[in-house]
Amino acid sequence: MWVVAQQQARAVETRAQIVRGAAETFEKQGYVGASLGTIIENAGLTKGALYFHFRSKEELARCIVAEQHATSIASVEAIGREQAPAIEQIVMLCHEMARQIVHDPIVRAGIRITLELSADEQGPADPYLDWINTCEQLARRAIVQGDLTPDIDPPRFARFVIGAFTGVQTVSQVLAQRTDLEQRVDDMWMFLLPGIVPAERHPDIDRIRKARSVGAPLARVDAQLPPRG
Amino acid sequence: MWVVAQQQARAVETRAQIVRGAAETFEKQGYVGASLGTIIENAGLTKGALYFHFRSKEELARCIVAEQHATSIASVEAIGREQAPAIEQIVMLCHEMARQIVHDPIVRAGIRITLELSADEQGPADPYLDWINTCEQLARRAIVQGDLTPDIDPPRFARFVIGAFTGVQTVSQVLAQRTDLEQRVDDMWMFLLPGIVPAERHPDIDRIRKARSVGAPLARVDAQLPPRG
Repeated sequence: MWVVAQQQARAVETRAQIVRGAAETFEKQGYVGASLGTIIENAGLTKGALYFHFRSKEELARCIVAEQHATSIASVEAIGREQAPAIEQIVMLCHEMARQIVHDPIVRAGIRITLELSADEQGPADPYLDWINTCEQLARRAIVQGDLTPDIDPPRFARFVIGAFTGVQTVSQVLAQRTDLEQRVDDMWMFLLPGIVPAERHPDIDRIRKARSVGAPLARVDAQLPPRG
Repeated sequence: MWVVAQQQARAVETRAQIVRGAAETFEKQGYVGASLGTIIENAGLTKGALYFHFRSKEELARCIVAEQHATSIASVEAIGREQAPAIEQIVMLCHEMARQIVHDPIVRAGIRITLELSADEQGPADPYLDWINTCEQLARRAIVQGDLTPDIDPPRFARFVIGAFTGVQTVSQVLAQRTDLEQRVDDMWMFLLPGIVPAERHPDIDRIRKARSVGAPLARVDAQLPPRG
């Protein structure tokens, strides 16, 4: 029994190693450009080990998008547990997405696969829909809490926020290899908040803008500002 | 002499045919995924005809990005000639980018190539920089004209606007194959304008939001609204 458990643990580790290696290859070479040969080479494994876990490149790609999905759901739930006003949680959401993109190769590979597959057919939209749905629910709560002007339509607002974030990170990737992403997301809220927060709550804008998830590492832009509290 | 001119005209037409065919292939299969073989097949030409004009796939891709660049410069100049306030020209700029993406396969191919090449190294950033620089100049003029709050930093604002537009179109692509792009760009300005236009100009927001370039076809969202005037 113990030998079986040990074998299973090794299989789980090998699978994770394949997925990490594949993510790096997909991120650099794209879904179409990445070959199973290169993925095997980058993961430092044999063909047999890979085929034991995955039947095809498509199955690997699907697994990466599913892991990206799971990561986003986990962080969305973590943000939901924060004791912060909903408008601050929306700001946290964007900084958390930025953090994942910068630090998690599986998230970056998932984004690249999603974009590539959605160019000619309906691609995997789940990760976008997760963030949009969460943002929509937070927007509804923020309206009730008086932090978002009541004439804002939550579904359209959520779609805009996730869209704006997505492109802010794309332009940061093209122009600065994402090194300025944290600063650019902060800019986004600087331009957006005055128009969506009711006038009587404008004194709170600075606090809202600086909101970060407790779980997330301290953001560079925050380090230059006085501590919250 | 007349025969030479005729031959030249035919060469120009063949070249344009190759570029259009290549753009469609790059858009669907990406830079890495597209082979010269498929490009030749899609363009309905011989290998010899292609190699007479282009030495490699890279040269073709470079040509498409350059054409995208030329298209964006031409439309930026056309918008610059409009007799509209600068803030309206910024709105026009976004709707013009949307129109080009929906209607011009060379622009779509250029975007895909840019994104793909910028994933592992510094990709061609020119098309983004064109729009950002134009938007920055318009933002400076809009501040002077009193339509943009003076504490807005034009370079950061321009980068945000082009970034937000970029992602709004990405999410529209993933979720709706870009069929709702015009409406989503209109949403973007609905959420953004109240926070960036000084309070005393708020009565103008509706007019600013409806601004469209005269050269551009009437937008769907405009068709539901009373005519400008």
